[in-house]
Amino acid sequence: MAYCTGVLKNSFLPLLKSQDGYSSSSLLTATTSPLPNNKKKYSCSMVTAAGAQDNNASIKQYNTEPRQAKTLNFCGEKPFTPILDTINYPIHTKNLSLEELEKLTDELREEIVYTVSKTGGHLSSSLGVAELTVALHHVFNTPDDKIIWDVGHQTYAHKILTGRRSRMHTIRQTCGLAGFPKRDESVHDAFGCGHSSTSISAALGMAVARDLTGKMNHVISVIGDGAMTAGQAYEAMNNAGYLDSNLIIILNDNAQVSLPTATVDGPAPPVGALSRALTRLQSSTKLRQLREAAKSITKQVGGQAHGIASKVDSYVRGMVAGSGASLFEELGLYYIGPVDGHNMEDLVHILKKVKAMPAPGPVLIHVITEKGKGYAPAEIAADKMHGVVKFDPKSGKQLKTKSKTLSYTQYFAESLISEAERDDKIVAIHAAMGGGTGLNLFQKRFPDRCFDVGIAEQHAVTFAAGLATEGVKPFCTIYSSFLQRGYDQVVHDVDLQKLPVRFALDRAGLVGADGPTHCGAFDTTFMACLPNMVVMAPSCETELMHMVATAAAIDDRPSCFRYPRGNGIGSILPPNNKGSPLEIGRGRVLREGSTVAILGYGTMVQNCLAAARHLQALGISTTVADARFCKPLDGKLIRQLAQQHEVLITVEEGSIGGFASHVSHFLALNGLLDGNLKWRPMMLPDRYIDHGAQADQMEAAGLSPKHIAATVLSLIGENKDSLLHLVKL
Amino acid sequence: MAYCTGVLKNSFLPLLKSQDGYSSSSLLTATTSPLPNNKKKYSCSMVTAAGAQDNNASIKQYNTEPRQAKTLNFCGEKPFTPILDTINYPIHTKNLSLEELEKLTDELREEIVYTVSKTGGHLSSSLGVAELTVALHHVFNTPDDKIIWDVGHQTYAHKILTGRRSRMHTIRQTCGLAGFPKRDESVHDAFGCGHSSTSISAALGMAVARDLTGKMNHVISVIGDGAMTAGQAYEAMNNAGYLDSNLIIILNDNAQVSLPTATVDGPAPPVGALSRALTRLQSSTKLRQLREAAKSITKQVGGQAHGIASKVDSYVRGMVAGSGASLFEELGLYYIGPVDGHNMEDLVHILKKVKAMPAPGPVLIHVITEKGKGYAPAEIAADKMHGVVKFDPKSGKQLKTKSKTLSYTQYFAESLISEAERDDKIVAIHAAMGGGTGLNLFQKRFPDRCFDVGIAEQHAVTFAAGLATEGVKPFCTIYSSFLQRGYDQVVHDVDLQKLPVRFALDRAGLVGADGPTHCGAFDTTFMACLPNMVVMAPSCETELMHMVATAAAIDDRPSCFRYPRGNGIGSILPPNNKGSPLEIGRGRVLREGSTVAILGYGTMVQNCLAAARHLQALGISTTVADARFCKPLDGKLIRQLAQQHEVLITVEEGSIGGFASHVSHFLALNGLLDGNLKWRPMMLPDRYIDHGAQADQMEAAGLSPKHIAATVLSLIGENKDSLLHLVKL
Repeated sequence: MAYCTGVLKNSFLPLLKSQDGYSSSSLLTATTSPLPNNKKKYSCSMVTAAGAQDNNASIKQYNTEPRQAKTLNFCGEKPFTPILDTINYPIHTKNLSLEELEKLTDELREEIVYTVSKTGGHLSSSLGVAELTVALHHVFNTPDDKIIWDVGHQTYAHKILTGRRSRMHTIRQTCGLAGFPKRDESVHDAFGCGHSSTSISAALGMAVARDLTGKMNHVISVIGDGAMTAGQAYEAMNNAGYLDSNLIIILNDNAQVSLPTATVDGPAPPVGALSRALTRLQSSTKLRQLREAAKSITKQVGGQAHGIASKVDSYVRGMVAGSGASLFEELGLYYIGPVDGHNMEDLVHILKKVKAMPAPGPVLIHVITEKGKGYAPAEIAADKMHGVVKFDPKSGKQLKTKSKTLSYTQYFAESLISEAERDDKIVAIHAAMGGGTGLNLFQKRFPDRCFDVGIAEQHAVTFAAGLATEGVKPFCTIYSSFLQRGYDQVVHDVDLQKLPVRFALDRAGLVGADGPTHCGAFDTTFMACLPNMVVMAPSCETELMHMVATAAAIDDRPSCFRYPRGNGIGSILPPNNKGSPLEIGRGRVLREGSTVAILGYGTMVQNCLAAARHLQALGISTTVADARFCKPLDGKLIRQLAQQHEVLITVEEGSIGGFASHVSHFLALNGLLDGNLKWRPMMLPDRYIDHGAQADQMEAAGLSPKHIAATVLSLIGENKDSLLHLVKL
Repeated sequence: MAYCTGVLKNSFLPLLKSQDGYSSSSLLTATTSPLPNNKKKYSCSMVTAAGAQDNNASIKQYNTEPRQAKTLNFCGEKPFTPILDTINYPIHTKNLSLEELEKLTDELREEIVYTVSKTGGHLSSSLGVAELTVALHHVFNTPDDKIIWDVGHQTYAHKILTGRRSRMHTIRQTCGLAGFPKRDESVHDAFGCGHSSTSISAALGMAVARDLTGKMNHVISVIGDGAMTAGQAYEAMNNAGYLDSNLIIILNDNAQVSLPTATVDGPAPPVGALSRALTRLQSSTKLRQLREAAKSITKQVGGQAHGIASKVDSYVRGMVAGSGASLFEELGLYYIGPVDGHNMEDLVHILKKVKAMPAPGPVLIHVITEKGKGYAPAEIAADKMHGVVKFDPKSGKQLKTKSKTLSYTQYFAESLISEAERDDKIVAIHAAMGGGTGLNLFQKRFPDRCFDVGIAEQHAVTFAAGLATEGVKPFCTIYSSFLQRGYDQVVHDVDLQKLPVRFALDRAGLVGADGPTHCGAFDTTFMACLPNMVVMAPSCETELMHMVATAAAIDDRPSCFRYPRGNGIGSILPPNNKGSPLEIGRGRVLREGSTVAILGYGTMVQNCLAAARHLQALGISTTVADARFCKPLDGKLIRQLAQQHEVLITVEEGSIGGFASHVSHFLALNGLLDGNLKWRPMMLPDRYIDHGAQADQMEAAGLSPKHIAATVLSLIGENKDSLLHLVKL
């Protein structure tokens, strides 16, 4: 019996009607849901389990009544979870009946909403893959079988089912569970993922290693349609099709880029031509006919899928394929789908079939899910409640704390809009991060001058280079850690050709709950080594606005500026948020002292100022300077600091090889280290800092004001005082 | 009249016969050429110009006789080039007849072979696109129209036609023409390219900029089938299909990855499933039928392509497409092809038609070419004479100079083979660079343990990470500058997870004739900032072998080692090329002195030793140490050098932020800079160094032995002597 799971009964009713020209005999029906955004939701079964049991594949044999789903409980009380309470590890799901698996899924949804409402975190991605997660763990056997969750923020159900339920209340918190899969955390986390589109590559490596070492396990990559837009996924599929290793790729198609692209003004539709191709796959009449036929074959085969699999294979391929088949078939994958990702029976059936195939090569199972599925507030939210703070489970209303200041991201966006109002050559580019980068605001103001290129940082950078060759002024806005993916393009296409692309690097430094995968530790190091790049970091939001203006004005070479996650300090903003270009390579002294000089780079300057206040209380006269530029350095300022103080400390929120290296290079070449100056670099330590509160991370990094002050004290022979000072703070 | 151009008459004869089940009425015939490698060559016309003129598209109206091509002159004398002599700039090709264009192509081939035989350089790629280059310049108008040549080593004909003919004898030499397109060199070089697969991104940027600024020019990207395997090309196509800008992508399909993948043992077939898809496109019966139909439409349309274009469009799409069409159609491109890339009439016709379409959106023209076309020695060579030294034009025999030592690349490969013989867990990965990395040797010895993943560095790295999770020991062998493309994967998939992937970084430092696009300047900087990475560089080939053994032995974290382009110094190799693991983080003193310490990293150690010999002649006692490790540093060694000498100089062939930064950090934190030690870092200067002889580049970089010696002299107060010393050397 085929049926649909789900709580929003209405969204399934159209199945019973004839809609969009499809009769109810269509196994895949594009149903228009009552969502406010007019986006079609594809929510019904396609490749069904029923086909294997019925003799006649006609519609009469399908019960198209939606399953009478349990009314889920999102009252805010701890949910009643009798089945989930019996599951500590995946092995406990093995003997569950289909009905119990469905109930388990319901309970997981209640548990996830309950937990995340108290902690905040990624919500809707895990709700969308609840059935898929249960089905995967029911059919496969982790940790022997490997499941690699692309991006990884959809793994809350997976974490709950793999021994971590009792710690879910600590998720993303200091010393708590990570928000992403993490190999150190569980043997069931086969691969750590925080950046997108890596899972097929990793899975292929594991599959090849399995074959080389004579093992027999399965390897499954679960990848979203958004992640499919990245070049790495294509590279990996191309290689998988060539190597022909046994490998299961589950394309989790929720018809949107699975990132918070929609925090401003409604949902962002998926960009890229690929999404159209996926939609075609979903709505193809031919495909529907094919599946009817495929079912009747499967039915005749019954349980003996073994020898017949190849027949089905060639039949299916022949029909889907035509001259070229889908993109996936072109790349050598065996395409199965679309499958309703909220139909447990279908999922379990398909996964079991694929598992039983002796040598399928690389298989791609196209699963259609709905992000936020089962939790109405998430389903109807513009951003699907992708990432949330604590919220009221009943209403979904997030308990956002008011802040006096906005985020650096917003200040950036507002000042860029201000520049763009005065210069129509300015355009903005982001890689599927309109919400995260603030460029949704820019998009709203200048819809024709904002380019979301998909999760495609490599392309984003070279695309910007192409724009720059023709006199357009691109601001390529990418998180610090994500720019790592476009590094060669920064070097080869931008810097080497001295093209005036402006890189706005958000999330520079420590990023809090997202942890080390998203930490922007390395950008100053890998950008400032490039000969033509101007490298800046603002010490506050006002300076950020000036640097946006500076970058807009630099039109003969590339430039970049980095700014952190988090809110501004409340500095006085320039009129209309329009900054003024700074003199290139000129820093400034913020506080004059005599004994000690502290030279800060970026928002660390604020910690330097705070340290100076501590030191002042101890009677130590401290100069604090804001370097503003890592490249070109302000040689005059550095010379002055070095010559007029006994101690010079540089402070930055970045790795070795960055600002301090440029300062030390200047000091050394100018003989400023030959005398008795004590120079000390303070930077991020040489290890990854776990997720947690940003303040905790700053402590762990040893970059808080007290650390800076203590370093000064130790250098001027006040070791005891420095210890006491550390303790007191 | 349709005909085929070319000199190898035989390769076209099969057109007249019925081969492979295709009758001679097939416009695309897969003809088996007499090449020794049994690889099929697709060499005949598909979309023909004739179709526009004939009423009946049947075979009878085609003259399938091959054009009586001029017998090309490769005698080694300066060729007679009456037409080429009239062409200084592309505008001079405008009034040429078809026959004259063909003759021009012949002359270009003669000119290229003549020139490159005297200079060395990239040969066969330019021969393969001779017709295409002429046709493009005949139809389009650079510099207003933009042609972006992917990778760019195929641009010798383009350079000759764009005002640089008289300087072709200087190509790739110091102060001569660059071997790749270079914006500084000519306004006709719209975009610099040395790394692959960037052209569609850049072209899309230019197309969007054109639309934003209200211009009307054309933008054309020429990209090889090898370059199409890179993720960036896919990202760009996906975005192009979405933006729907007018843009022409020419897929130059020569059925092999356009890189020197075949220097060992015959041609390397293209890897990746994409190549199979391309082959299907070439041989598709449906497509052939379609083109027949398309032709008859074109014919009825005649010259009024304007309004009708959309009809043809939809018709063609409808027929090709079926449910999914080709990969390119899936990504939203309008696919045209396959076109015989050696048929001038067809090329000119198609390009003119596409140029005339008012709003075609992104068009992909699939052009089939043969690498080395027209020059028999290149056509039959295993590597197609992709990159050559000087050679005898008559025979194609290269005048390779004998060297007493092998390249570092070969020493690497031999020692890796030696390790792999003892440890069957060791596997090797490269990104379409089997020849360049020496891994063809490994592939020959261990065919199941060597993975060519295509031009896909991102995937290569994460694939290696996946292998490492399962206990396999991957050596991921990538040129220093190409690893920039997999940097995020190194950070996020390997280092953060502390997976024991070994990175062998070939072409570290200055690389000679390939110039700044291939210069490995930044790897130490961007690798040594990663917390878990062990970072090494050998001072000679023996040390390289020890470092291969060391990396093989490091199985609890990632490691990397860098080595240069060029030959070893003749050091005594370990027995059977099997190195011995070094103690991690331990350097060595090579020469003991008293006043001055020079600490070298990598092969710069040899320059340090040479400098010490100069200094010895001047009576200055110099210690020379080989750091071996940048990370972890040998703190004991550095402390000793700093405490026992007045001067400490670090020398490396890399950018700022690398070895010197790690040394200065150690020195500062340990108070070793607080006294009177004079520390000076010597490294690559903060600018890109043009192509040329490696020795010239070393001079330009200021890293030669005399520069090191002069630096020492200046630091010990011997400024006059140092100047004299510099002059004398």
